Amino acid sequence: MKGKLYAVGVGPGDPELITIKAARVLSQADAIISPRSAAGKSSFALEIARGHIGDAAQIIEMTFPMEYKEELMESYWRECAGRIDELLEQGMDVAFITIGDPMLYSTYLNMMGYLKAPELAEVIPGVNSFSLAAARTGVPLAMGDETLSVVPLGKDENGIIGALESGDNIVIMKPSALSGQLARELSNRGLEGSFVLASMCGTQSEELSRDIERLSSKRVPYLSTILVKKGGIK
Amino acid sequence: MKGKLYAVGVGPGDPELITIKAARVLSQADAIISPRSAAGKSSFALEIARGHIGDAAQIIEMTFPMEYKEELMESYWRECAGRIDELLEQGMDVAFITIGDPMLYSTYLNMMGYLKAPELAEVIPGVNSFSLAAARTGVPLAMGDETLSVVPLGKDENGIIGALESGDNIVIMKPSALSGQLARELSNRGLEGSFVLASMCGTQSEELSRDIERLSSKRVPYLSTILVKKGGIK
Repeated sequence: MKGKLYAVGVGPGDPELITIKAARVLSQADAIISPRSAAGKSSFALEIARGHIGDAAQIIEMTFPMEYKEELMESYWRECAGRIDELLEQGMDVAFITIGDPMLYSTYLNMMGYLKAPELAEVIPGVNSFSLAAARTGVPLAMGDETLSVVPLGKDENGIIGALESGDNIVIMKPSALSGQLARELSNRGLEGSFVLASMCGTQSEELSRDIERLSSKRVPYLSTILVKKGGIK
Repeated sequence: MKGKLYAVGVGPGDPELITIKAARVLSQADAIISPRSAAGKSSFALEIARGHIGDAAQIIEMTFPMEYKEELMESYWRECAGRIDELLEQGMDVAFITIGDPMLYSTYLNMMGYLKAPELAEVIPGVNSFSLAAARTGVPLAMGDETLSVVPLGKDENGIIGALESGDNIVIMKPSALSGQLARELSNRGLEGSFVLASMCGTQSEELSRDIERLSSKRVPYLSTILVKKGGIK
């Protein structure tokens, strides 16, 4: 390969919460690969990164529909990897941007196995969404000898009980589809006062709530994190 | 309070992996509070932050011995909080720096309860050590519907089994005191090829290893992270 690939974590939402290294790489890259969930839909990662990208960089938005069936997704990942390999062959330095940290639940992880030489990529870590959620709410993720579990909820209702049993402190990612069921299960366990919902942190649409009624009655945005603390919230 | 307190995550080790916001706050703060484990010992957080701190800032190193008994530590936390409150009363903007992210296992979390007005502090999240460990080794933290557990090992040998049973992917923090026992337990479970050790990431002393012999035979540095993947490492 003549060019170099970077997987760049752009952090949780506030453009100022990008690392100095990520900003430098974005300002120097020849091409930016930005994943989005549907054609025509804006990419949140690109919104965060935009002010740091160099004027001459080529911005390539690639669509990854939010399917849960891996066999349907493979063709998208393969196409994206092929496109990146072409750019690298042309000698371009390419930055693949992801919200938060590239090594935790990112599209990059699904795609990288289809690259010719994923081991040559450099990964620039980013601030995770749950770190900003904790910062904004003032609720610690974990202290002392407590454990922290990070659990993606997705669409499987059976996952809720496993999630709530998984540790002293639980970060629930992607709670959107099952937020009502989650609210019921929190109440069943006497945890209705031991959670905090943080949505769209670091943006103008930020919402922070500890109200179980809000969680049970209204769908939460896709970009939400719920922190549950079995020891309670002070 | 006339001044403002910031809890600033300086990230995992590489000074370039600090956020733009953290660098700005450090450059503007009147006083920097830097925790260290013993008088005369250098503070890793301060080493990371040093290049970003303004020339006129007062740097105050405060000692927090690594005791595991909370009642012994309380006097240190109380003293530190009192000192910070004094500076804030004098109208100074104060930055308390922590390695990684302030809301996960930091000294700040222990200390903040002793402040007069902890709710007025602004927390600037940082990149976690395990995100850099994953970036440097190329080993994903979690993908798809996998869970991630973060477990501090400390000095209790019984914690090892609980840690290894806690999720699909496990980040073991502070493995230093029990690394030999951990190596044995990994081998007992057939996981001797499913871990990676990352020490002092982002520094000149960085060490990455997947060798179970290395883990069992030689003590690992204090600033180490071990990632265990039950599904194996590709």
